[in-house]
Amino acid sequence: MGKQTMRFMSDNTATACPQMLAALAAANHGFEMAYGDDPWTQRLDQALGAFFGAPVRAFAVATGTAANALALATLSPPYGAIFAHHEAHIACDECGAPAFYSGGAQLMLLPGEHAKLTSSTLAAALDAHPVSVHTVQPAAVSISQATELGAAYRPDELSRLTQVAHAHGLKVHMDGARFANAVTFLGCHPGDVTWRAGIDVLSFGATKNGALAAEAVVFFDASLVADFELRRKRAGHLISKSRFVAAQLLAYLEDDLWRRNAAHANRCAQRIGLAAGSRLIAPVEANEVFVQLGADGKRALRAAGFEFYDWGAESAGTARLVAAWDQDEAHVEALCAALNAL
Amino acid sequence: MGKQTMRFMSDNTATACPQMLAALAAANHGFEMAYGDDPWTQRLDQALGAFFGAPVRAFAVATGTAANALALATLSPPYGAIFAHHEAHIACDECGAPAFYSGGAQLMLLPGEHAKLTSSTLAAALDAHPVSVHTVQPAAVSISQATELGAAYRPDELSRLTQVAHAHGLKVHMDGARFANAVTFLGCHPGDVTWRAGIDVLSFGATKNGALAAEAVVFFDASLVADFELRRKRAGHLISKSRFVAAQLLAYLEDDLWRRNAAHANRCAQRIGLAAGSRLIAPVEANEVFVQLGADGKRALRAAGFEFYDWGAESAGTARLVAAWDQDEAHVEALCAALNAL
Amino acid sequence: MGKQTMRFMSDNTATACPQMLAALAAANHGFEMAYGDDPWTQRLDQALGAFFGAPVRAFAVATGTAANALALATLSPPYGAIFAHHEAHIACDECGAPAFYSGGAQLMLLPGEHAKLTSSTLAAALDAHPVSVHTVQPAAVSISQATELGAAYRPDELSRLTQVAHAHGLKVHMDGARFANAVTFLGCHPGDVTWRAGIDVLSFGATKNGALAAEAVVFFDASLVADFELRRKRAGHLISKSRFVAAQLLAYLEDDLWRRNAAHANRCAQRIGLAAGSRLIAPVEANEVFVQLGADGKRALRAAGFEFYDWGAESAGTARLVAAWDQDEAHVEALCAALNAL
Amino acid sequence: MGKQTMRFMSDNTATACPQMLAALAAANHGFEMAYGDDPWTQRLDQALGAFFGAPVRAFAVATGTAANALALATLSPPYGAIFAHHEAHIACDECGAPAFYSGGAQLMLLPGEHAKLTSSTLAAALDAHPVSVHTVQPAAVSISQATELGAAYRPDELSRLTQVAHAHGLKVHMDGARFANAVTFLGCHPGDVTWRAGIDVLSFGATKNGALAAEAVVFFDASLVADFELRRKRAGHLISKSRFVAAQLLAYLEDDLWRRNAAHANRCAQRIGLAAGSRLIAPVEANEVFVQLGADGKRALRAAGFEFYDWGAESAGTARLVAAWDQDEAHVEALCAALNAL
Repeated sequence: MGKQTMRFMSDNTATACPQMLAALAAANHGFEMAYGDDPWTQRLDQALGAFFGAPVRAFAVATGTAANALALATLSPPYGAIFAHHEAHIACDECGAPAFYSGGAQLMLLPGEHAKLTSSTLAAALDAHPVSVHTVQPAAVSISQATELGAAYRPDELSRLTQVAHAHGLKVHMDGARFANAVTFLGCHPGDVTWRAGIDVLSFGATKNGALAAEAVVFFDASLVADFELRRKRAGHLISKSRFVAAQLLAYLEDDLWRRNAAHANRCAQRIGLAAGSRLIAPVEANEVFVQLGADGKRALRAAGFEFYDWGAESAGTARLVAAWDQDEAHVEALCAALNAL
Repeated sequence: MGKQTMRFMSDNTATACPQMLAALAAANHGFEMAYGDDPWTQRLDQALGAFFGAPVRAFAVATGTAANALALATLSPPYGAIFAHHEAHIACDECGAPAFYSGGAQLMLLPGEHAKLTSSTLAAALDAHPVSVHTVQPAAVSISQATELGAAYRPDELSRLTQVAHAHGLKVHMDGARFANAVTFLGCHPGDVTWRAGIDVLSFGATKNGALAAEAVVFFDASLVADFELRRKRAGHLISKSRFVAAQLLAYLEDDLWRRNAAHANRCAQRIGLAAGSRLIAPVEANEVFVQLGADGKRALRAAGFEFYDWGAESAGTARLVAAWDQDEAHVEALCAALNAL
Repeated sequence: MGKQTMRFMSDNTATACPQMLAALAAANHGFEMAYGDDPWTQRLDQALGAFFGAPVRAFAVATGTAANALALATLSPPYGAIFAHHEAHIACDECGAPAFYSGGAQLMLLPGEHAKLTSSTLAAALDAHPVSVHTVQPAAVSISQATELGAAYRPDELSRLTQVAHAHGLKVHMDGARFANAVTFLGCHPGDVTWRAGIDVLSFGATKNGALAAEAVVFFDASLVADFELRRKRAGHLISKSRFVAAQLLAYLEDDLWRRNAAHANRCAQRIGLAAGSRLIAPVEANEVFVQLGADGKRALRAAGFEFYDWGAESAGTARLVAAWDQDEAHVEALCAALNAL
Repeated sequence: MGKQTMRFMSDNTATACPQMLAALAAANHGFEMAYGDDPWTQRLDQALGAFFGAPVRAFAVATGTAANALALATLSPPYGAIFAHHEAHIACDECGAPAFYSGGAQLMLLPGEHAKLTSSTLAAALDAHPVSVHTVQPAAVSISQATELGAAYRPDELSRLTQVAHAHGLKVHMDGARFANAVTFLGCHPGDVTWRAGIDVLSFGATKNGALAAEAVVFFDASLVADFELRRKRAGHLISKSRFVAAQLLAYLEDDLWRRNAAHANRCAQRIGLAAGSRLIAPVEANEVFVQLGADGKRALRAAGFEFYDWGAESAGTARLVAAWDQDEAHVEALCAALNAL
């Protein structure tokens, strides 16, 4: 908050975008039924269906952890196995939420370049896991789009992966906390990296990309919804004045706000990536940049007023630089200059 | 939504009050640390401490169910017993959230006039529950202020109850979804019906009384906080852009907004109560009115455009009429006239 | 253990009967597949099917608490409601096992004479529990045969109760820790108070009636088995050397051992009941006798060397006197004399 | 069960040893208090204390899965992290029991030769897991003695590992399903590979080594017992006629029965290991032998009447050959001949 501070810590530190605040004000008239029986919430299925180009069932929640954990608990029994990358947010940053919500499902963590799972890694893991009454039961795969290392799955990568999963009876969940960034980078249709590629359930994030607090769990197969609504309620994630969450999501979809916000963040990240050059440890395909700086490099940047998180162990010398939807371009310029000067 | 509709269904159907929307806009500047390390969230302890006249630890969440369940899970082990009124919100309206969050705590449901627990009822229940390795272990009492029947506990009622609880080693939680309404009715200091009366943890509600979505779990004994923050995170209730929840709560406390909002709702309820006369099944001590109407009475009111919920079984003929912070006084007048005409 | 001690505390304090120990020895030859793939375990379905006169799926476990909790967790989702008598073993004596196993199901505890649920009590409770996304979802009814007060449900009582349950979509579980005693008292066929009367799942107890440690969960509807076996395994209740549990159960069924053991215990209880006369607080219909003794009466009996538990609060003055399959008749005579002398 | 069948599938397929059956008969006299208040159960602490050469608190259960899961649930909160080898029984063969019992603890699975964890692997894993409110909280390490690949940890290996664990605030659990085999192989004192080496809690197995069904959870630090007894009860693992489990354990310790049984099994395994020669994939340090046979080798052995499990994926061509306490030496000779003939 000092004058010199330039934050690249997380897109969660960003503001909410004006269109979303305006949507709250616009929804704030008259008595409306609570708990989702309001016109805003009831428009979600249609609005997200139009966005994805397919019928969906969509449910608003306030946080990404809730979206992920509720989706996974709906897909996995308490004795289920959920396959994911070992750097996945659900494995590393949600304090055990998937196990809590599912009643004990076990994460089966796999390696993969740029935090991606591949179809062959998944196939090998499933082969090495003979199923009996003694084992956890393979139930789901969870992947992140963009990944934790800022990479974007291509549609064909996803198709190959979901084919393996479905062939083994597993459902596929996508953590889309930065879904807009990935789709914007890929320049594809949102359906191309979801239902057309075999994704069953998506955590559709908006908070990091401009909302105050709004995410949606999107089911592309209505039969999978099952008891989702009961699980959401007993977790305290059924918002009483639901219109205020739904209104954010509707505004997010309108006039491609999601894409405009993501495009700005992505452009900033691309420029940082160019400046980082050979220091990059992963391709820049969303709004995050992972850079090998070493202890000296990190110290120099921080001394110059740049704030960012270490990635992995502090001693590894790797920085995560995140650009937000409202990132100040002057700060980006300054960061690029500082990276060039290292 | 038709022209003639006059809603008395729930204070959850109300709008958000302008001061709280304004607080969102005021907080929407600059990059701020996520997950509570922002100036708004960090002011909560002090602001709520000033409100209660005692040091507190306070944690913002988005829903009352989350507040209640997280508080109770912090107080009770998975094999604990939580004593509550059989009409309590945690028993009837939260889809099993306390058991989910605590990992299985058993609700021990007790009777009591106007949905209040009394010290003697609690003492008798504890005496009839000899504790051994075979039984659930008494851990907590949970009461509602105001109660589910719109009654307000007096300070001395609370003190007697918490003395019994504490003497048996139980902690006491208060569900304060309508705390402001009760305190406003009682005309007392917020501390008089909380820490001074032996309450250990309070779910401090703001949503029903004008917020968009903001509640706080308030610990009057810092040692009870224990692992609350980890439980909140793994439940997906740690809001990333926490400033927007905290800002609502701070605005709620400022200039007695909480009391002004509650006072309006209470006044409306009082007028409805007067009109209901001998049909009342509980005293009107907050913003809810419970009226014995019979099938004909309910039909007549609904035909006249009034919307409200049945209370208990439909066949019981009882209506719950709730007045909100922004209830239209003309609707209240119309309702009173209709009640008088029955 | 002193010479003078005469135990009427619990049928759990009894010995194992010789036929069951002999069965262990008889099964102790050769290498047999573990975890139930042995001839003894594989004969259980057929043997219990013959016993009940209907096809069953039966699963051996070591304790009654495991049997009850596994059965209920199979019938109820984590957000389910299980209706039971407020004195039921699952509510009072299993340290919260049903909630643990089900992941949080809520017990809905009802009153009833002699610890029986009636169809009308159940119907009223269901009517008073309007179901929505906010409520726990009615899933099962659990009753005890014999009840916690030593009473036996008649077939028609059961039929009326299960009809109400089934009409509301609930499944019915019977805790048969003392099933043999009830059936022996009633003089009916085991099928008359189970599947013919609408019972869906039975915890079939043998331990209290002569086994070392052997119970079976018996499904009368194979489709309800669902994931029972996975739940049993992850609870650590799939016994590796399963033949030794199954052998006990097979011996228990052979030559009506179950009935002979129960008949002795019941006869002892009947004699005690006669001696107790008007002090009885419940009819003697199994092997337990509940007697109002007052503080003086209890003290006198204990001073004379009789051991037994208080029933309910100590101050209530009520004793529970239990006769086991191997109860010493001389002790029973002595107890009757002492009761007569009070 | 055919004449030609020679089983090397599991020590769980073995019989119970006569001394243990005899102990059941010897304990089967008189009425004894249930649920552990009997002289056999009450002697466990002292008997196991003498065995280990240190004061212990010991609790009998019927299965190894129950022992492991109860121990770990006592050491780890629901949001805890438990570090273990990726081939550990708790990870692969207990259907998610640790997560069920702990309420969601996450297994952090690590590699290691011969299914051993090393201090450096653990240290690296802990360094790579920065702890915050967003992460699961490191709580425990669980290792197996002997390991899943039949290797035995040396005392100094254990000491180094437990030092790293303790330095990070983690407790250390040992799964001793084949503890007797490891100790017998090492020729050390039971205390040398438990409390003297920093082990906090041990699952002390007897079932695989001659019991019918008897394991003990042994705490070397009484303060860690915490709520173990409540957790055991609500899991249905408090055996009512506890004397029959305790009597097995006492007989197991008497006259070094544990060592004599293990020595026979180990000797058989050693001979098989010698015959396997370079096909061994792990040293033979207990009663299990892991042999690379290829598809042809496996087929040949099975055609000759030998029964055994594949280890890992069937396609890997690896066999697990287990020798039991009562393994027929003629079968061992035949197996050795068959291995030599491959």
